[in-house]
Amino acid sequence: MDKIQLFKERIETLIENYNFSGTPKELYDPIVYTMKQKGKRLRPLLCMLACDLFGGDVKKVEYPALAAEVFHNFTLIHDDIMDRAPLRRGVETVYKKWNQDIAILAGDTMFAMAYQLAMQTDYKNIRKVLNTLSRVAIQVCEGQQLDLNFEQQENVSIADYLEMIRLKTAVLLGGSLEIGATIANVDDTTLQAIYEFGVTIGIAFQLQDDLLDVYGNYDVFGKITGGDITTNKKTYLYLQALEVADDATRQQLLDFYSDNYPLHFENKIQEVTAIFNKLGVKELVEQVMNDYYNKGIERLNRISVSEDKKETLLKYVNILYSRDH
Amino acid sequence: MDKIQLFKERIETLIENYNFSGTPKELYDPIVYTMKQKGKRLRPLLCMLACDLFGGDVKKVEYPALAAEVFHNFTLIHDDIMDRAPLRRGVETVYKKWNQDIAILAGDTMFAMAYQLAMQTDYKNIRKVLNTLSRVAIQVCEGQQLDLNFEQQENVSIADYLEMIRLKTAVLLGGSLEIGATIANVDDTTLQAIYEFGVTIGIAFQLQDDLLDVYGNYDVFGKITGGDITTNKKTYLYLQALEVADDATRQQLLDFYSDNYPLHFENKIQEVTAIFNKLGVKELVEQVMNDYYNKGIERLNRISVSEDKKETLLKYVNILYSRDH
Repeated sequence: MDKIQLFKERIETLIENYNFSGTPKELYDPIVYTMKQKGKRLRPLLCMLACDLFGGDVKKVEYPALAAEVFHNFTLIHDDIMDRAPLRRGVETVYKKWNQDIAILAGDTMFAMAYQLAMQTDYKNIRKVLNTLSRVAIQVCEGQQLDLNFEQQENVSIADYLEMIRLKTAVLLGGSLEIGATIANVDDTTLQAIYEFGVTIGIAFQLQDDLLDVYGNYDVFGKITGGDITTNKKTYLYLQALEVADDATRQQLLDFYSDNYPLHFENKIQEVTAIFNKLGVKELVEQVMNDYYNKGIERLNRISVSEDKKETLLKYVNILYSRDH
Repeated sequence: MDKIQLFKERIETLIENYNFSGTPKELYDPIVYTMKQKGKRLRPLLCMLACDLFGGDVKKVEYPALAAEVFHNFTLIHDDIMDRAPLRRGVETVYKKWNQDIAILAGDTMFAMAYQLAMQTDYKNIRKVLNTLSRVAIQVCEGQQLDLNFEQQENVSIADYLEMIRLKTAVLLGGSLEIGATIANVDDTTLQAIYEFGVTIGIAFQLQDDLLDVYGNYDVFGKITGGDITTNKKTYLYLQALEVADDATRQQLLDFYSDNYPLHFENKIQEVTAIFNKLGVKELVEQVMNDYYNKGIERLNRISVSEDKKETLLKYVNILYSRDH
């Protein structure tokens, strides 16, 4: 079995064996419910891959890796309240299945659990690991706040958007790698380098998500694309379109994205996608996305660790980057 | 100046000098707003007093003490969302002044800040301090969930209620003392003893709060008593009344506490207070409260540390216990 598969199975086993239940059950049932959902387990995998990359003892990163997953799921539970999202991973969100108060408290509890887990490693590395977790946690909150601000904000620049996704999504990927590398006892320069690699490919991954939401090959799964268009989300595609459109097209887009524009969501998705196509937005965003991705890979390549060690991590990010849904 | 006053001023200075601001301001303004409100600063004071009690270097407990205050304020911000509370400490709650999303995120950010602060002490004590913080944080969530459950639950026993206030309020007082004692490097038996002392007097303090809400001498401040009665809160007084009342009086109480009972809140407070008086509830609760208080003091007295060292801590809990509002 290859290492990626091995680490993935290890993470699932860790989650299965960890006791997320307790009393009162109203508080713990949503936590168990959330943690047993199968996700990509991207963040714990990055923790393990980074630890392994630098020759660390992967056993020692297992609980901090689990911490990254628990932390990520906590943020999703709170985000779903704010976004009034009824579904996540095809099932009801905690806020919808139980209620908002429970979603707030279950999230808070998971945040504390994440710290408990993150501490379960060599004593000498605890401060660094927890500093990374805290720093990243605060940045994720900042990113979510910017995302909320953008909903109300008329002029969002592409630079604003990139800063938002850096904070909301990318720093946690960088942070996960940083935690894994910390436990492998690398020096601070290397820590910074692996973190920057994670942040840079993290931005590429988010741009990919934006693209897939419109152009993703969801047909195989019978899913509907265009969720971001339906909810008027100011994604990179939309902001890029606004930037290159002539005045008339820009006004058209602004109209489509105004609240309660009288158009059935399927038609709206069609119309907006047509504008994106006309403006060549897909290609423009792909270019920026590839630039970030390549910059990330370059950063990884500059880290001095043997090529065969890098292979597994590179393989994994390549798999993620080639997904079409 | 006496020690209590000295520590109080030190805490205010620490809060004033700590940088709680940042960008985006929508996220950080509510944090600054909350932290600059003058509270009793009970939890950081307990951290400092416990450290001092055991001859620890109080300088080393300053940031963990601040962590306890930041953590406590985070829980208040989230609680106020759940309770739909418009006011706290005489000013608008974060959820009311800004909005719910901001209150969730500002709270989450403060939780991470609390961990950052709690780590700022001798390296050898970090794991213990953070384990205490995490354990207590989870228990506070459990307590809040029980409190929410009780709103819907028909039969709440006095034992249920005591367990709820132990978790929601008392363990954080115990935990604050434990953190202070940890930083003074005491042994585990003593840690446990000072924690138990805090939990036990913490329950007494909460019963006192319940009593003061009905019988408090708020007149000097022109405040209104009876908030718990108005909101049908199942406090110790109410549960005690149900236990000792005859069938007719019990039904009367249940009616008053049913949703939308058609009675002006001032009359309701009067009627319910009259029932409490008739049943001698005040005296019954005072007895239980004094039992907890005395048991707490006994626990403190059994800790082997010189009497003059205990004096300051005893003086402080006595001041708290003799308040009439």
